[in-house]
Amino acid sequence: MPRYSLLVEYDGRPYCGFQAQGDLPTVQASLERAILRFSGEAVRVTTAGRTDTGVHATGQVVTFDLEKTFKAGVVRDAMNAYLLPEPVSVLDAAQVDPDFSARFSATGRMYLFRILNRRAPPAIDQGRVWHVKKPLDADAMIEAAKCLIGKHDFTTFRDLRCQSNSPVKTLDIARVKRIGDEIHLVFASRSFLHRQVRSLTGTLAEVGIGRWEVGRVKEALEARDRQACGPVAPPEGLYLTHVTYEANPDFEGRSSI
Amino acid sequence: MPRYSLLVEYDGRPYCGFQAQGDLPTVQASLERAILRFSGEAVRVTTAGRTDTGVHATGQVVTFDLEKTFKAGVVRDAMNAYLLPEPVSVLDAAQVDPDFSARFSATGRMYLFRILNRRAPPAIDQGRVWHVKKPLDADAMIEAAKCLIGKHDFTTFRDLRCQSNSPVKTLDIARVKRIGDEIHLVFASRSFLHRQVRSLTGTLAEVGIGRWEVGRVKEALEARDRQACGPVAPPEGLYLTHVTYEANPDFEGRSSI
Repeated sequence: MPRYSLLVEYDGRPYCGFQAQGDLPTVQASLERAILRFSGEAVRVTTAGRTDTGVHATGQVVTFDLEKTFKAGVVRDAMNAYLLPEPVSVLDAAQVDPDFSARFSATGRMYLFRILNRRAPPAIDQGRVWHVKKPLDADAMIEAAKCLIGKHDFTTFRDLRCQSNSPVKTLDIARVKRIGDEIHLVFASRSFLHRQVRSLTGTLAEVGIGRWEVGRVKEALEARDRQACGPVAPPEGLYLTHVTYEANPDFEGRSSI
Repeated sequence: MPRYSLLVEYDGRPYCGFQAQGDLPTVQASLERAILRFSGEAVRVTTAGRTDTGVHATGQVVTFDLEKTFKAGVVRDAMNAYLLPEPVSVLDAAQVDPDFSARFSATGRMYLFRILNRRAPPAIDQGRVWHVKKPLDADAMIEAAKCLIGKHDFTTFRDLRCQSNSPVKTLDIARVKRIGDEIHLVFASRSFLHRQVRSLTGTLAEVGIGRWEVGRVKEALEARDRQACGPVAPPEGLYLTHVTYEANPDFEGRSSI
């Protein structure tokens, strides 16, 4: 039974997150509907990352099995034909090993958080950036982010509804960079806790605004207490940009941003 | 009577172009409505560039007069408060000389045209890029664009409804650059003919696709015949990014892209 993998881009605005929830509009429901339309087969897809409501992706990866065999290019083009006019696009498709899983084979995930840091609200990027009016001190945010890199108990930066067995994760990248009017935060880890990136971003923004001293982020991390977390950043600035697979280096998520 | 200048960003999708047309939704109507709401004064704004339906701007400039005097920052913030939730944003405001005109004082205009050149349709940038599936040869487009620079009769690249007195314009910049999955075309001139940028872009895309030889663009230019133009590119990839004012170098449009 052939297994297929898709590299998917989507605008999270019209969706109640990735994961299927009854009749609610979700990215998963849209993908499974398109698969049913072109293949005639009702399947469930496995995903590398369950993004929240309003969160975007430029490099989401999903896998699913079909009875029939299709050429990868046919799968990609047929999916895009049936997905239109929804803001979900299949960038690439491949037939993969039957033991390859978008979720369990993933060895790394990367997220980008875009903050628009100017007085005027976004016009062209409405719903696709977090608008922060007050000037952010990027250097202070860079300094504060350093203590987050490495293996830590991230209980402080974990949503109370998080279902992960352990709050201990290893953060490989926690980068902050100013690009014109925007501040981009990039986080990479084998896996993330629920709302971890938005919790880290909202907390680092407190430092950028000057409400928090740089050192308070380390104190918050060490407190291992959700109450010590800063405000959680909104979903609209968050993008799942990249998923890494050692088992299948030819098929990696990639950022189009 | 104080005159004000605004630097404006907008998403052209929901608007029938910039210029007011009765009750149709236009950027001008939205700006004038916001001015009326905060100042109580009904005015007409003068604009640096009358963008078409679906065309965007990151550096549009408008001027208008008010009876009352307001601080520039108050004008900017009040405009943005009354414009929400529309995708129109006032990036900057300034009180300018009474003889300064967004339109007649402009000494240069710059446009960016974004082509998304990949097989998969845009999800996140729907309506904000021109999607071209076939691979474009950027080097051939760069070569073909060279003959456009300088003073020429651009009749071939001028919409038949163009109201400009003369088809002769001086193109200062005609740049083509590949950036990942996108091809960006940048054009700069003191002023442009109606649909000139979209006509030039659509024609250069013919070269990129390989349907036109590089040399055919020069032949088309020299033909001074609208029939010799390639297909006109759609509006969704076009952005007015920059307007230059020698008289007022402190107040220049700028690109946020």
